[in-house]
Amino acid sequence: MTQQTTLDALAGVLEARKNSTPDDSYVASLYHKGLDVILKKLGEEATETVIAAKNGQADAIIYETADLWFHSMVMLAHCNLGPDDVLKELERRFDLSGLEEKASRNQS
Amino acid sequence: MTQQTTLDALAGVLEARKNSTPDDSYVASLYHKGLDVILKKLGEEATETVIAAKNGQADAIIYETADLWFHSMVMLAHCNLGPDDVLKELERRFDLSGLEEKASRNQS
Amino acid sequence: MTQQTTLDALAGVLEARKNSTPDDSYVASLYHKGLDVILKKLGEEATETVIAAKNGQADAIIYETADLWFHSMVMLAHCNLGPDDVLKELERRFDLSGLEEKASRNQS
Amino acid sequence: MTQQTTLDALAGVLEARKNSTPDDSYVASLYHKGLDVILKKLGEEATETVIAAKNGQADAIIYETADLWFHSMVMLAHCNLGPDDVLKELERRFDLSGLEEKASRNQS
Repeated sequence: MTQQTTLDALAGVLEARKNSTPDDSYVASLYHKGLDVILKKLGEEATETVIAAKNGQADAIIYETADLWFHSMVMLAHCNLGPDDVLKELERRFDLSGLEEKASRNQS
Repeated sequence: MTQQTTLDALAGVLEARKNSTPDDSYVASLYHKGLDVILKKLGEEATETVIAAKNGQADAIIYETADLWFHSMVMLAHCNLGPDDVLKELERRFDLSGLEEKASRNQS
Repeated sequence: MTQQTTLDALAGVLEARKNSTPDDSYVASLYHKGLDVILKKLGEEATETVIAAKNGQADAIIYETADLWFHSMVMLAHCNLGPDDVLKELERRFDLSGLEEKASRNQS
Repeated sequence: MTQQTTLDALAGVLEARKNSTPDDSYVASLYHKGLDVILKKLGEEATETVIAAKNGQADAIIYETADLWFHSMVMLAHCNLGPDDVLKELERRFDLSGLEEKASRNQS
């Protein structure tokens, strides 16, 4: 599964859950509780990522970073934004499109 | 540019900067300062994302989330991990491979 | 009740709870769970304080700041430190003893 | 210097700085930059406190907790609140006045 499919599939799941009832899923209950609860979770997961990184255990670092990215995607969906908006900003900032072009040329 | 290419290209940039001198770039200076400074930035960007979301301005939300994801990728690179580790965890957790398979079957 | 009595009384409660069983109280259960759980709570309360301040409701700001100070005092107690250590640092930094002296002289 | 005097003296300094120009002091410049910058600092210092506690060095823990308490007091002052509001909430929550009364009776 490509990274694109992963984030897009997750964004699709998050969008679909907007039509669920709070009892249906964790995500639907987060939407129902509203932005402040989503942001509280985002801050909580950031702290847990910091603690995991200080502990230096790869499994926990991956787990907590996934939690952090997941809750930031719930926040984005709640604000009618998505991962593509963030990735385009990263491309713009690091001129990654340019890097890709250059890489393509080098391969030819 | 696909999301996969974006994150992989960024991971490639972050890996390459490990061989740079601190004066060369912001990323190289972060590596040089060490894990605590990287984690401090990660926590800082999480708070700025929360503030941006409370302010409800889409541009700032995208900008700060990009900062948050970027610094979490610097942390992952410092720990010899990468975005694929996190995305695989998200796939596993949400059974996204299964969703993709199901979607493929529905399209056929 | 003076501020000194408040913080000292709270520090006394926190110290006494070190000898309690985890079932006895919330504080004893925090000690039992260890530093990472205490720090996770500290980060959580910091985010909740930020959210409360953005919402601008005095009651919630006071409540969340009390949570933040409380969990930072649990952390201090866990590390065998106390509020006096922090207050002495604030005095040193802002030369508050000097201010007090000056204020005393002005009053005489 | 008692704790009461410390926090009150600091609150007095913070209040007085509201009439300073931004160039005069760090606190005046924080007020001038506004709530979001104050909250960003609060979140930053919370993360630094977590990192210091994980490193287990008493000096750094005290230093970062002082930073955290200080910036939360700047936030309180910006919201026209003060340390007494927070301490009263802690007294109420832990029934510290009651404990004090009980302690007084035991001593007699």
